[in-house]
Amino acid sequence: MSKDTVQLWKLLSSTTALDEKWFPVRKDAVELPNGKVINDYFVWEAPHIVSVVAVTTEQKFVIAQQYRHALGKVTYQFPAGAVDKGESPEEAARRELLEETGFTAEKFVHLATLNPYATKMTGLDDIFIAQGAHQVAEPHYDPQEESLAYTWTLDELYAYIESGEVLMTQVPAILLLALRHLPQA
Amino acid sequence: MSKDTVQLWKLLSSTTALDEKWFPVRKDAVELPNGKVINDYFVWEAPHIVSVVAVTTEQKFVIAQQYRHALGKVTYQFPAGAVDKGESPEEAARRELLEETGFTAEKFVHLATLNPYATKMTGLDDIFIAQGAHQVAEPHYDPQEESLAYTWTLDELYAYIESGEVLMTQVPAILLLALRHLPQA
Repeated sequence: MSKDTVQLWKLLSSTTALDEKWFPVRKDAVELPNGKVINDYFVWEAPHIVSVVAVTTEQKFVIAQQYRHALGKVTYQFPAGAVDKGESPEEAARRELLEETGFTAEKFVHLATLNPYATKMTGLDDIFIAQGAHQVAEPHYDPQEESLAYTWTLDELYAYIESGEVLMTQVPAILLLALRHLPQA
Repeated sequence: MSKDTVQLWKLLSSTTALDEKWFPVRKDAVELPNGKVINDYFVWEAPHIVSVVAVTTEQKFVIAQQYRHALGKVTYQFPAGAVDKGESPEEAARRELLEETGFTAEKFVHLATLNPYATKMTGLDDIFIAQGAHQVAEPHYDPQEESLAYTWTLDELYAYIESGEVLMTQVPAILLLALRHLPQA
């Protein structure tokens, strides 16, 4: 690495801080480039997730309305969820889109790999776009993840983004990626 | 609420799961709308953060290069950090921009309030734009947050976003918000 690059930290040791299947947290001891040691740097070992921007044949965006417990609010977002064991990210994206909204599409294209909070959580978020999406079922109500499907025009999506409501960071992030892929939008 | 809205969960009780100043986690017992009870829903009580898109007088974007330990990589992002006690979000945005990049600007405008992961973490991310930014100092090397400042054109920012590297979700999210505010860009 050139001197014009910040340096990596050195991992000294790693222990389990919270041994919970649904929220595993590890505690790292790390040495910084200047020699300082931090003995309690916590990292949430978050799941690998996928998110899907599905665009209908009428050029509308498929949006899921869901309750988000940490925020304590109902929000709107692009369909998303964890990659199950043995599944590829694309398979997870197809499954989550269908479960949360009842929509599907022939072709899914990978747009980017994101990380929501790279200081403190490990999980990656693989983003897919599915054009020509159409509804083939009602949303499947997972008891833990009740979901309603909406289809919004680009103007409706911008109105939500600029409404002043708290937004999930994935909403404007994925919209930017989608718009780069859809130059006609 | 109309029947066309998903329902809120009911909080039954809340206890401390991880009593750590730098990573407090609570464990909630919640009742879902269908009556199902979950006794171990974990929520990270994450800090309130701010992020700043600073645009120079030459229409370049100010980017911080930093090591992100949970990801184990050096990444590029819009300057960001936690709101200190007694600080307003705008004060925090001004301080973080100056500390991480040495840049400042006269006027900061609030663009949106985001949440990086609303299922599992509480912290909000207030986004500011600072136009006419100019460098008045070297980045201040917080020993825990070594930072190098870059200024990128919009094309350079898009090249990074489309490079295939893992991106912090805030990068495309904040760029979309900034571009809506900068119609000439």
